[in-house]
Amino acid sequence: MKLKKIKRAIISVANKENLKLILPTLKKFNIEIISSGGSFKKIKNMKYKCIEVSNYTKFSEMLDGRVKTLHPKIHAGILNIRNNTKHKKELKKGNIPNIDLVIVDLYPFEKEIQKKNSEKKIIDYIDIGGTALIRAAAKNFNDVTVISDISDYINLKKELEIFKGSTSLNFRKIMSAKAFGSTAYNDSVISNWFNNKLNIKFPEKKTIYGKLIDNLRYGENPHQQSSLYKTGLNLGLKQLSGKKLSYNNYNDIYSALNILNSFKKNEGIAIIKHATPCGVSIEKNSIRCFQNALACDPISSFGGVIAVNTIITKSLAYEINKIFFEIVISRGFKKDALKILKKKKNIRLIDCNKLNLINEHNFLFLGNAFLAQDKDRDLFDKKLKIVTRKKPTLNQLKSLKFAFNVCKFVKSNSIVLVSGKSTIGIGGGQPSRLDSCKIASKKALEFVPEKIQNSVAASDAFFPFPDGIEELAEAGVEAIIQPGGSINDKKVIEAANNAGLVMAFTKIRHFLH
Amino acid sequence: MKLKKIKRAIISVANKENLKLILPTLKKFNIEIISSGGSFKKIKNMKYKCIEVSNYTKFSEMLDGRVKTLHPKIHAGILNIRNNTKHKKELKKGNIPNIDLVIVDLYPFEKEIQKKNSEKKIIDYIDIGGTALIRAAAKNFNDVTVISDISDYINLKKELEIFKGSTSLNFRKIMSAKAFGSTAYNDSVISNWFNNKLNIKFPEKKTIYGKLIDNLRYGENPHQQSSLYKTGLNLGLKQLSGKKLSYNNYNDIYSALNILNSFKKNEGIAIIKHATPCGVSIEKNSIRCFQNALACDPISSFGGVIAVNTIITKSLAYEINKIFFEIVISRGFKKDALKILKKKKNIRLIDCNKLNLINEHNFLFLGNAFLAQDKDRDLFDKKLKIVTRKKPTLNQLKSLKFAFNVCKFVKSNSIVLVSGKSTIGIGGGQPSRLDSCKIASKKALEFVPEKIQNSVAASDAFFPFPDGIEELAEAGVEAIIQPGGSINDKKVIEAANNAGLVMAFTKIRHFLH
Repeated sequence: MKLKKIKRAIISVANKENLKLILPTLKKFNIEIISSGGSFKKIKNMKYKCIEVSNYTKFSEMLDGRVKTLHPKIHAGILNIRNNTKHKKELKKGNIPNIDLVIVDLYPFEKEIQKKNSEKKIIDYIDIGGTALIRAAAKNFNDVTVISDISDYINLKKELEIFKGSTSLNFRKIMSAKAFGSTAYNDSVISNWFNNKLNIKFPEKKTIYGKLIDNLRYGENPHQQSSLYKTGLNLGLKQLSGKKLSYNNYNDIYSALNILNSFKKNEGIAIIKHATPCGVSIEKNSIRCFQNALACDPISSFGGVIAVNTIITKSLAYEINKIFFEIVISRGFKKDALKILKKKKNIRLIDCNKLNLINEHNFLFLGNAFLAQDKDRDLFDKKLKIVTRKKPTLNQLKSLKFAFNVCKFVKSNSIVLVSGKSTIGIGGGQPSRLDSCKIASKKALEFVPEKIQNSVAASDAFFPFPDGIEELAEAGVEAIIQPGGSINDKKVIEAANNAGLVMAFTKIRHFLH
Repeated sequence: MKLKKIKRAIISVANKENLKLILPTLKKFNIEIISSGGSFKKIKNMKYKCIEVSNYTKFSEMLDGRVKTLHPKIHAGILNIRNNTKHKKELKKGNIPNIDLVIVDLYPFEKEIQKKNSEKKIIDYIDIGGTALIRAAAKNFNDVTVISDISDYINLKKELEIFKGSTSLNFRKIMSAKAFGSTAYNDSVISNWFNNKLNIKFPEKKTIYGKLIDNLRYGENPHQQSSLYKTGLNLGLKQLSGKKLSYNNYNDIYSALNILNSFKKNEGIAIIKHATPCGVSIEKNSIRCFQNALACDPISSFGGVIAVNTIITKSLAYEINKIFFEIVISRGFKKDALKILKKKKNIRLIDCNKLNLINEHNFLFLGNAFLAQDKDRDLFDKKLKIVTRKKPTLNQLKSLKFAFNVCKFVKSNSIVLVSGKSTIGIGGGQPSRLDSCKIASKKALEFVPEKIQNSVAASDAFFPFPDGIEELAEAGVEAIIQPGGSINDKKVIEAANNAGLVMAFTKIRHFLH
């Protein structure tokens, strides 16, 4: 247990709300309190005994509070090893009492940077003295208790009650782990803020930070434990009904949200299963939009995630309810639509109206390394290079661009067939592009054979051989959009010309793995 | 530019190697030096003028160096805002001179935890005073220069030379960003060390840290910038020849390494393309092992990554050279084998003998959130539950387990067909399990039709309907391994019995997305 009696505490907190929870207990166990600034005033106002830091150190607070506790009397009081005879002697010689408890929370730097204040103001929220106190106490956990989060006052209170004014080693260790979690998090926010300001994308030392939102039931599989962390102040997702979301739900939801984010305002529906799009449409009419997205693969869509880029109306809710979806995401729900959807058993409804997919980068974890990269751009808007004799019609051009924008959300060798403003066949997840061509056209032939004539196709990367072109042409595709850039481009273009196709080059690749 | 003249510096460094690079420049510009402990001795020995901190503050160094610089005279000297009249007055009153340059590096905590010393010893490497100095200086970048990395001495020297003893605001900002990068990284290592010690998997505040290894040519696509970071001290990969590795190379390499890690010692070959296995074998004879892995999909394997779990011999090198692989990874290369492989143009050879895939967790990034979870376990070793009338032979049992161990490395609805000790058809990346069954059996029929009779199949998750079973039975599969657990299990088992199949349940799922 290694109990350690607490005789003296230092308190310096930004958030003073919960002091009332802990002060009576400190008094009960005759714990002397040192404090400064606002915390000192607050404690005095609440009629508790308290020594001001400057009184304690005989050194006046300076520089608008920038230097208060950065004093050897404070830090030696915290940092000395209690059972070290040499340390003991030095403390006695310097007339320095032990400080056994440090209650300090950091200035809310993360909140401050959201406010778009001046740089000068923001920098005031970089906490030097508080961080030093927390870190010193956390290092010396064998002798000292550190409380760096107001939510732990209640745990400290319990601990002091159980052990009659002492704390156990285990408690001190857990509080130390939390304290370093807090300083690491805070400095990570500061460091990333600095790097963003300076446009340093890939600094020599990179830290990524997250706040726990939820311990999930399990991870990708039941034998894997898992949790969800947010990297900003808010996810911007609001679950309106249904049971807790799982790891795979979140993975699917964000796959859907990425597609949603690529749509123009108030248009578009995407259906996702296993983080793979089953159907996507940007038809203006929301009912037709839904029907077309669903038609692309009604079998895989069953039990999937549907994401709607508008407010869901009553009539759309009726349509959606004809199918079983695990999750319905939208930019909002009309009241009556919500009522209708809630009738469905096991459905989860999510409002993503306040979503903000802030991150400019993404990270891929590899076991003992990670890859950092820019997010793939959201939309293709450059001029196309038409490489075939046949030129596209205006409608074909629109369909081609839509198809190309969808194919970036399909993994590994993606081929996306589009008719009008809706996908009709999606192939991907294959090590061979030809196989993806076959999967996409087979799907279209199976579910919407009437639309495959006059359809267009997009490929996320170049065709290495003409075989994929021939496969698509045979299925009925009339125009193809692809990056180009293969050493076989000439043969590929020739195959397109021979089949009477239109082909456009984008010079932009959209691999996704 | 906002140049700031440097009159006084504090130096306290763990790594004293490079002091000789910067001391002459400091002397040249008449910069007064304050220092302590080992740094003080080193500077004195090199015959430079230097004041000891305790002499400067009139406060003796204490607690074996735990308290040296944590003094208001030091911190006020750093933290005061130079153009703030109130601050100026306070400094004058306290007779506190400005400190304009802070050269401090942190104790090497990360290296220390590798040494498996006692907890007490490790804790000594948590740097309190140094961190406080670095953070104070980094906060006050408008007036103060902070150098937290010995590799920046040369940049400081240049800066001082150009600006004749001053530094520019831009330089100070960049050094501050680096300084907070360093404290964030260090506290992240400490925090993760504490959490590991306490078995806290998902702390409230989580930071993930990495050190830049390389800026890559580009990311997943040419328009995305990208870099590689290591999360430990070393990757354990040694590139022996060929041009620089790319983002997609690393993604493929680690997909291969995960499979390699699941093999028994000295057996197994995996071929990867687009982070997807094209063929896997655990045949004892390395030549047959290679031929079988390749035979599973020789077309997709072209230009892929091959990972060999043994030392590559001359005869295997000859076999490998018959095909074009972008990357050959192995546990080592015989000298003559290396010579043969190096003859091939554009090949990259990687020795993974020192690989250590340390991380117990993985992280999936989602834009404004991340999912943390346990790694999926490496090997299935539980007893199987045979649910069909027909029971497996010993050989079938071995093939079934191998197939199940491979299917966890295939994404979304994976179906893996195995004959003997080698895969013969791999299907995945599909929102529908039935489609994966079709892809896997089509591949087997295309490339190794002679082996599909008497083959076995594994599925990463349960079959929702009997259709997949029927598809596989029709192709020639004789035994199936799968988690089980569908509400339709009864019908699925019936379908297996009707087709005269063996079926085994694992009760363990292996989703991967």
